[in-house]
Amino acid sequence: MSQFWSDQVRQLRPYVPGEQLNADQLIKLNTNENPYGPSPKALAAIRDAADERLRLYPSYDALALRQAIAELHQLSPEHVFVGNGSDEVLAHIFSGLFLRGGRPLLLPDISYSFYYTYCQYYQVPAEVVPLDEDFTLRVADYTQTREQPPAGIIFANPNAPTSLLLELDQIQQILRANPDTVVVVDEAYIDFGGKSASCLVAEHPNLVVVQTVSKSYALAGLRVGFALAQPELIQGLERIKDSFNSYPLDRLALAGATAAIQDQAYLHECIQKILESRIRLTEALSRLGFKVLPSSTNFVFATHPEHDAAQLQQALRAQNILIRHFSQPRIQDYLRITVGTPEQCDQLIQALTALLNP
Amino acid sequence: MSQFWSDQVRQLRPYVPGEQLNADQLIKLNTNENPYGPSPKALAAIRDAADERLRLYPSYDALALRQAIAELHQLSPEHVFVGNGSDEVLAHIFSGLFLRGGRPLLLPDISYSFYYTYCQYYQVPAEVVPLDEDFTLRVADYTQTREQPPAGIIFANPNAPTSLLLELDQIQQILRANPDTVVVVDEAYIDFGGKSASCLVAEHPNLVVVQTVSKSYALAGLRVGFALAQPELIQGLERIKDSFNSYPLDRLALAGATAAIQDQAYLHECIQKILESRIRLTEALSRLGFKVLPSSTNFVFATHPEHDAAQLQQALRAQNILIRHFSQPRIQDYLRITVGTPEQCDQLIQALTALLNP
Repeated sequence: MSQFWSDQVRQLRPYVPGEQLNADQLIKLNTNENPYGPSPKALAAIRDAADERLRLYPSYDALALRQAIAELHQLSPEHVFVGNGSDEVLAHIFSGLFLRGGRPLLLPDISYSFYYTYCQYYQVPAEVVPLDEDFTLRVADYTQTREQPPAGIIFANPNAPTSLLLELDQIQQILRANPDTVVVVDEAYIDFGGKSASCLVAEHPNLVVVQTVSKSYALAGLRVGFALAQPELIQGLERIKDSFNSYPLDRLALAGATAAIQDQAYLHECIQKILESRIRLTEALSRLGFKVLPSSTNFVFATHPEHDAAQLQQALRAQNILIRHFSQPRIQDYLRITVGTPEQCDQLIQALTALLNP
Repeated sequence: MSQFWSDQVRQLRPYVPGEQLNADQLIKLNTNENPYGPSPKALAAIRDAADERLRLYPSYDALALRQAIAELHQLSPEHVFVGNGSDEVLAHIFSGLFLRGGRPLLLPDISYSFYYTYCQYYQVPAEVVPLDEDFTLRVADYTQTREQPPAGIIFANPNAPTSLLLELDQIQQILRANPDTVVVVDEAYIDFGGKSASCLVAEHPNLVVVQTVSKSYALAGLRVGFALAQPELIQGLERIKDSFNSYPLDRLALAGATAAIQDQAYLHECIQKILESRIRLTEALSRLGFKVLPSSTNFVFATHPEHDAAQLQQALRAQNILIRHFSQPRIQDYLRITVGTPEQCDQLIQALTALLNP
């Protein structure tokens, strides 16, 4: 600790991402990356943009990308805010929408752990609401009448690491019961099995939907995320962005993400393959005695009644197979396993079979 | 203004960057971009990285890039922090190093205007120190004994928009007089005429040097900046980064910036051409009656005793020649003109000649 650190730095407990090792030698099923590459059209667009124009600043308003996103979601560019990965978008939401006179932010106890980091970094008080025994989100916990409206509500849908989906009518109940509160639905995994709440944006001025090209579009390496909301909320986020970094997306990321979003045929082909793998993986894990939660994502969340999850994860790691374990109350018996290619899933199942039946 | 905006958003006055129009039809001398493209090796590295590996998250620690930067500055990777443009690096410095119990940050009255935006965004009180009449920074203003040490000191060197350089021994005086204060030297333009303070990092635990690949490396479109400081300070910045966005640099930016920094031969060739243009541009402007400050950057700061600067800028704009004017006290009579190619400079001088001698 340095005498030069700000008080804030001293108190921070930063987010810890999944292990990033050199992927060449590994079966990497620990950070929910897409096993298939990005759209060839996205790669072509990036290569096209890799020329002397890189000497110029990128587009200040990222209009082409915002237009592509808007078209896909049947909204206008004024409904779209883009950022350097959905993490940056989330960070700006905390700073721009959740800092409201010390009122608390409601969020589930089991969710994307970066939310708690942001609460700490931006000094937004967190009111952590436990998920139900079966890890479902109890809508009633978010619709109670309160003395003061909460500063905000945030949850991932489908949730991570549980993989469980909340239906749109449940989200609508939460939106209606909280007209004076911004409700953020983080849809990093929505393309793998749910219907986006983006269709509710026009109707609900308190809704923000966050998505990313990291997972379904197989562009985790490009760092592009976005928020969808009514223009007034988007303008608030733009004010934050313009007080932080005028050009958060480089020219290559803009070109690649725009082309990827315009190539819906490739996206759906990719998703289809992952959904097929998910069924096979779920069945194989079940045959090995795992209880697997019904996944709407590109990962499964599984527990074995007779085997220690952390030990299994370590044993697989010794065989160069990476999966994720969270040593956190309530989920320490679970493993989060990214759905890989059929071959990767087979290798995982083979390794697990040997471990469970030595 | 929306009922959902945080108090902070309501109060922000965001940074306003230079106009970004479609560059094809323009002589664009308004945002200090490099008229020559980036290193061909950087472009090749980007194209090589544009493949299916983009499905994977980028390097978490950006080690290859930090190593290239460290080698260039004869430091170790532990001395290097990288971010999504030097703006993001500066933002994290404000949050991580300048927020110190309400003590003020010292900074010049004429400087990069984003500093004042950050003061506001992060609620760091600014103590604005006027530059001397001739826009030089008076070292004595920063070396006085004070009841309490300031929270920090920040200035650009060479300064923008003045283009003036402070010598290293002057910076050392400031460092020595402020052992308990972080001193940030923002060297966005250092490659065009100064010696980097990076050679002082090993000796001064209170020094942070910030640089970018936007200007001299002609990679404004890639968004990569970095800070050099002793490891304790770098660790503080890393804690902020890990509480904000784990992967601020995408795979393409990492590959391109690393290759660009490793290609010093191309860099120096480019800089040489710009320095030659700067001499010609300065002479031509002087012949037209402009007073041109002695520039150590890739732009000149010039004023004409008989002509209104804002009007000149507007008249040039009508001819598709963009230069920058700041309607700010003390510098509203000045124009900031990026040094372009010899052809661009000639076209500017031609247009100015016609405007001044109608």
